[in-house]
Amino acid sequence: MREAFHSDLQVIDEDLLEMIRLVEVALRDASTALLDGDLGLAERVIAGDVHIDDLQVDVDELVVDLLARQSPVATDLRQLVAALRMSSTLERMGDLSEHIALVARRRHPDAALPDADRADFEKMAQLAVAAIHDTQKVIQERDLALAAVVEERDSEIDALMHKIYARVAKDDHGYTTAQIIDVTLLGRFYERIGDHAVSLVRRIGFLVTGSTVDPRSAATDDQVF
Amino acid sequence: MREAFHSDLQVIDEDLLEMIRLVEVALRDASTALLDGDLGLAERVIAGDVHIDDLQVDVDELVVDLLARQSPVATDLRQLVAALRMSSTLERMGDLSEHIALVARRRHPDAALPDADRADFEKMAQLAVAAIHDTQKVIQERDLALAAVVEERDSEIDALMHKIYARVAKDDHGYTTAQIIDVTLLGRFYERIGDHAVSLVRRIGFLVTGSTVDPRSAATDDQVF
Repeated sequence: MREAFHSDLQVIDEDLLEMIRLVEVALRDASTALLDGDLGLAERVIAGDVHIDDLQVDVDELVVDLLARQSPVATDLRQLVAALRMSSTLERMGDLSEHIALVARRRHPDAALPDADRADFEKMAQLAVAAIHDTQKVIQERDLALAAVVEERDSEIDALMHKIYARVAKDDHGYTTAQIIDVTLLGRFYERIGDHAVSLVRRIGFLVTGSTVDPRSAATDDQVF
Repeated sequence: MREAFHSDLQVIDEDLLEMIRLVEVALRDASTALLDGDLGLAERVIAGDVHIDDLQVDVDELVVDLLARQSPVATDLRQLVAALRMSSTLERMGDLSEHIALVARRRHPDAALPDADRADFEKMAQLAVAAIHDTQKVIQERDLALAAVVEERDSEIDALMHKIYARVAKDDHGYTTAQIIDVTLLGRFYERIGDHAVSLVRRIGFLVTGSTVDPRSAATDDQVF
């Protein structure tokens, strides 16, 4: 019974890792589509989001099934509740990557990004993809030292978003209003992806150290303003 | 045992209802602060978000405790899993209301909204507050007819956001870039609040009708673009 439980837990872990792998690919491709104006790649990200959604359904069904069949307590129960939270966070990260691809598609064949912002968005995308890659390792190896790196990357993403917003707000020429709207939304999408990565590694931290999740400490989003 | 379980479930339901009442007040006050430039009200919303966060912690702890002590199955189990989802959605709605108050505070004593957009934001705020109010009734009375009204209100909010974005994008004069950034973010905050209300009433729908939650159908956010 207990062995069966742990093999089920392993399936859930593998599904979560597959979700985060798909999110990493989606965000990398969406960012390339945005920076290079690659319509085909944008379409592929948009069409692929359903696979991430499917995996969320799988994880949630497995968790509910395990809760019903095995009545876990203590650490096992906390792991299952964490898996529910994480699947929903990962699904949202997939949506946000899709949103970036949708902006790239909407503006095609025009470039969605003004030249002045390209370099910062490229850096922001690299940081976000790296944060997801590190988060994957934190989930897989329970490596809390790497969790701190994810938090740093998130702070750098926040700083870049502020930098971009400040530049756009100062510069009253050279941007069309449509570009300002796009840049504002895109900055926000990357910033939210960083927040979600932090919330994932904090959840692993809580699992490893045994404390409960406090949404106030996990709500890094509040630092945006 | 079963009676104790149901009295615990009732406490969870009451906490969720208290959360949504606080979210309704927060959004109404944040919207007034935004439209009237009322700094004190903005501060109150920002300071009050912690109460919504506290309630989420309460709900989550109660759910985990009930799962551990009572090992519920079937409908009882699905209700507890739904409560976990709903507490996290409500916490996020509180954050988004706080974000609106933060924009109002950041721009004070200037008006955050250009005159041309005031009427549409006022309408969007009314729709969002009404959607939350209806959602409260759906949770309390399991009234699925009212759930359809929430979905309609959400569509109207989406349409207003598109209308505002289109007007801003067309009008290359009269807006400062800072105003365009604010209007873009504010539109997005209200739109997300509408999405979250829909996700809450759909979750109640799934509980009442017994089907499982499919994130693809709940992801109304994707209709934004």
